[in-house]
Amino acid sequence: MFKDRLRKLVSLLSTWKIDGVVLVPGPNLRYLTGINMHTSERPTLAFFPAQGAPALVLPLLEAQGLPEDVRSEVHLFSYTDEEGPQDAVAAAAAALQLSGKRLGVEFLHMRVMELKRLEQAAGDCHILAFEAFLQELRACKDENELEEMRRAVRITEEALSSTIAQVRPGQTEQEIATELRLAMFRAGAEDVAFVITVAGPRTASPHASASSRPVQPGDVLIVDCGAVYGGYVADITRTFAIGEIPAELEDVYAVVKAANEAGREAARPGARAQDVDRAARQVIMEAGYGEYFIHRTGHGLGLEVHEPPYIVEGNEERLRPGMTFTVEPGIYIPGLGGVRIEDDVVVTVSSSETLTTHPRDLIHL
Amino acid sequence: MFKDRLRKLVSLLSTWKIDGVVLVPGPNLRYLTGINMHTSERPTLAFFPAQGAPALVLPLLEAQGLPEDVRSEVHLFSYTDEEGPQDAVAAAAAALQLSGKRLGVEFLHMRVMELKRLEQAAGDCHILAFEAFLQELRACKDENELEEMRRAVRITEEALSSTIAQVRPGQTEQEIATELRLAMFRAGAEDVAFVITVAGPRTASPHASASSRPVQPGDVLIVDCGAVYGGYVADITRTFAIGEIPAELEDVYAVVKAANEAGREAARPGARAQDVDRAARQVIMEAGYGEYFIHRTGHGLGLEVHEPPYIVEGNEERLRPGMTFTVEPGIYIPGLGGVRIEDDVVVTVSSSETLTTHPRDLIHL
Repeated sequence: MFKDRLRKLVSLLSTWKIDGVVLVPGPNLRYLTGINMHTSERPTLAFFPAQGAPALVLPLLEAQGLPEDVRSEVHLFSYTDEEGPQDAVAAAAAALQLSGKRLGVEFLHMRVMELKRLEQAAGDCHILAFEAFLQELRACKDENELEEMRRAVRITEEALSSTIAQVRPGQTEQEIATELRLAMFRAGAEDVAFVITVAGPRTASPHASASSRPVQPGDVLIVDCGAVYGGYVADITRTFAIGEIPAELEDVYAVVKAANEAGREAARPGARAQDVDRAARQVIMEAGYGEYFIHRTGHGLGLEVHEPPYIVEGNEERLRPGMTFTVEPGIYIPGLGGVRIEDDVVVTVSSSETLTTHPRDLIHL
Repeated sequence: MFKDRLRKLVSLLSTWKIDGVVLVPGPNLRYLTGINMHTSERPTLAFFPAQGAPALVLPLLEAQGLPEDVRSEVHLFSYTDEEGPQDAVAAAAAALQLSGKRLGVEFLHMRVMELKRLEQAAGDCHILAFEAFLQELRACKDENELEEMRRAVRITEEALSSTIAQVRPGQTEQEIATELRLAMFRAGAEDVAFVITVAGPRTASPHASASSRPVQPGDVLIVDCGAVYGGYVADITRTFAIGEIPAELEDVYAVVKAANEAGREAARPGARAQDVDRAARQVIMEAGYGEYFIHRTGHGLGLEVHEPPYIVEGNEERLRPGMTFTVEPGIYIPGLGGVRIEDDVVVTVSSSETLTTHPRDLIHL
């Protein structure tokens, strides 16, 4: 699998007029090689030249943990803590003759630290943004990837259901968040990508984080969470009512639910990403809440929580089978509260399939 | 607190011959302002000029979640998903007259994406590595910070004890890791910074991650973990024996334990960081295992898992009261296994205090 992916990358380099790619730990490196490392203050750089074997500059203590098939196919330049990375980066750059070359890097993942080391070691090299090409390679998920995503969704929904069943007035947002995290790990999550649990007026802020405020009757409660499985992320939001909520929020809920449905309906091969945004936004605008829908309708989902295709006005990219993304319209009214309903969708050959299955009708807790 | 920290930063800018600092979400921004955001594909940039009010470029949906005292003292440049960040960054750069200025940024946290946007918006600006100054501001922890760290340590050790009490042969490394994560959240962790649980021959690799291999009699089991509380991280490693282990690993354990003690003994005000490394390494070299101690003795600990002071040969920085770091010597013998014992230390006025208290004698599970 990894060999095929790497071969495809290298075969495309000449088309893209790039002499090589230099990656840091993260989703692209994991996708291409299976190497699952975190960035740290000890730089790791993976070189994939158009010709010849890949090279890896990394701390000595990470080198021993590499999978055997990586060790045998990659030229390793490891460094000790005493030595530091400078000579290892220089040796790799010299071995690969990077000077003056056109090198693609990940603007969204590479830090200034790695960029400066690379520029210093590979004199006169031309650094180019390579994100879009890598994202294109990863855009359409194959069946194996979709299996991991389905599993991440199942874990997330199982945890959401069990957590919600226990929510009672008086519990704090933070307590609910902790219970949800625990439930995701219990259900088999490899990691928890994020948890947002916010209730009451603060739901009017889409990215607020859990506070020590107890939830109380009359609150809406927004739960937005995602487990990771096999590197792939789920991302679901449901909005609940604690007892009876203001009539306007009931109305808002119905509008958001209709917008969510319209967005998912519009997700099909050949549609433009912005068409999905427009379909959802249209429902909200027609209901008179347009100014309160203050974010895009969704984002791609895969090895990253946010990745292309972005479901936003202005994105004319055509959807293709295997693309996976969220549809998550929301209405946020300052002083009153917010509602968001988010599902994960995969484009199929003829239309689309919604991976998330948790009920979308308003549940009163 | 945040006002004092910001005032100190700004007052030092002229000493450092810097016209302003541009930060991204992360530990430095959290330390200076309390803003606790994650980086994402939507860039956030915080500008702290030597003169005038700070400015913040950020996505509109994050702006509403800002603390009130931040909103009132900062010039906000927010952007919608449809607009994208370009105009907002340009407006901030123009308002602060950044063109041609000397700007300090975080090489370890800022991504190439933010750097390029900044360079584009602030024409002819000079970008300088500002990490060291920020790290210096954060180097000596005050009593409030130490309280958070003590709490993070207590949570971590409570979870470690309860998890270890349940380890049985046949459990997989991954199952132990999951139980440990759950235990940290149950004990009150705000987050779990990392968990490493590795047993048997793979302990010879210091950064190996948990596998599906069941632990078995004769294994050593390395558990390295850290909870987060109030943003501050704990970091502890203990090595356990599953039943009887090979005699050489018992010997190795005794050497590592003596090295850990020697390192902590050497931690005092006025000592150089490398003196702590030398004290620990000396014990291991004299026992004939020098070549198997393949990493530095420790790293600073605080809002980041790894931060200065690095306890490594060549670091002549003098230790000062309030500095916090790990002492974690290890011996890793390929084919046989590894042992690491890690504690968290704070330098006091006269010597040092070890925050971690879990027993250091070899425990047979």
